[in-house]
Amino acid sequence: MDRGELKLYGAWASPYVLHVRLALKLKGLDYDYVEENLANKSAALLRLNPVHRKVPVLLHGDRPIAESAAILEYIDETWPRRFPLMPADPRERAAVRFWCHFAADKMIPSLIAILRSADEAQRAAAVGEVRENLELLEDELREGFFRGRRFFGCEKLGFLDIVLGVDAHFLRGVTEVAEVDLGEDFPSFTSWLREFEAQPEVQEVLPPSDTIVDFLRGYRRRILAQA
Amino acid sequence: MDRGELKLYGAWASPYVLHVRLALKLKGLDYDYVEENLANKSAALLRLNPVHRKVPVLLHGDRPIAESAAILEYIDETWPRRFPLMPADPRERAAVRFWCHFAADKMIPSLIAILRSADEAQRAAAVGEVRENLELLEDELREGFFRGRRFFGCEKLGFLDIVLGVDAHFLRGVTEVAEVDLGEDFPSFTSWLREFEAQPEVQEVLPPSDTIVDFLRGYRRRILAQA
Repeated sequence: MDRGELKLYGAWASPYVLHVRLALKLKGLDYDYVEENLANKSAALLRLNPVHRKVPVLLHGDRPIAESAAILEYIDETWPRRFPLMPADPRERAAVRFWCHFAADKMIPSLIAILRSADEAQRAAAVGEVRENLELLEDELREGFFRGRRFFGCEKLGFLDIVLGVDAHFLRGVTEVAEVDLGEDFPSFTSWLREFEAQPEVQEVLPPSDTIVDFLRGYRRRILAQA
Repeated sequence: MDRGELKLYGAWASPYVLHVRLALKLKGLDYDYVEENLANKSAALLRLNPVHRKVPVLLHGDRPIAESAAILEYIDETWPRRFPLMPADPRERAAVRFWCHFAADKMIPSLIAILRSADEAQRAAAVGEVRENLELLEDELREGFFRGRRFFGCEKLGFLDIVLGVDAHFLRGVTEVAEVDLGEDFPSFTSWLREFEAQPEVQEVLPPSDTIVDFLRGYRRRILAQA
């Protein structure tokens, strides 16, 4: 196995990039980090990911790996013994992949819909979607495959904690910017998220809440100005 | 490992269901098949996949697995020695996952856009997208990671052949329905697709082209009638 140097092309406020940074941190892997200007992407990024032209791209030696979920699997498969991220059981792996897909397919779009909502009706619809998604996660934590666990990865953070945790951390910022009160309706989800955010590796990798809120506020302002 | 009975909930004209059927066929696994009426889904399907309420769902004993990509990985991880679908090398696995994501994220949406196009401008834009996607695949087959191979899985069909092959078979139907002529612009792609379609397992699993064309024609007619 060629261990080569690791270099990550990212953007500080991308949840997908933060998934990869947190995975690398948990694995204890050092890497060079290149912050991309998404309004003016580097020639290197366009060459390394000509199909999607997106961050994150992980360069391992001379091999570029793109798509955040594929990067996480790659990291875990290349360094399987250091802090395993994926469970060993195929059924559990399928559940992890299912909920990762849910995060990308349902959670993130509902957050973006809140930030882009131009009037109260749009905002209410997007908040309704977020609530529906959180109910599904709450049910999963209470009664589903992962019930009764401290983390999805059991006693330690795992693949699904990384993905859902980073995304949920952004959700917290979105609710603040859009003044959404989720109340006490999702106690299992909330207590899992608090435990996630309290982990030292998470605190080292995630930008402070205030910084995320400022970024999301700016994003919302730009969207509304264009509308 | 509990081997249990396998039951697949599907819909005959869903490419995602056909990915799973082809994987099961290549693995030589027997299963019961339940055809769902997507306009009136069964209580069993809604109970087994409450989050997305979609086919395919694979029931293995009493364990439901949903999301077609997660199902394929599950099948391969549960029966790893029979006709392996995923390559062993992490870099190659990452490339397979990257292009599977490309199929779901770019190819399928561009096909649907052609079928839903209500005027010439929309149709031309959708055809342009399909061409762009095929150029990316053509480049990959010629110069990319998988260059010079008979199949993405080398000498035998693999994970990525299943996904891209089924989707490309539908693409062929879409071009016929929408009278799109792709000409001779994608020779490596076309010759790979021909080889894929000539495999006996593929011929056993895929519905005949005429049946797919009739289905797609009906789909397009219903969409245009609603517009």
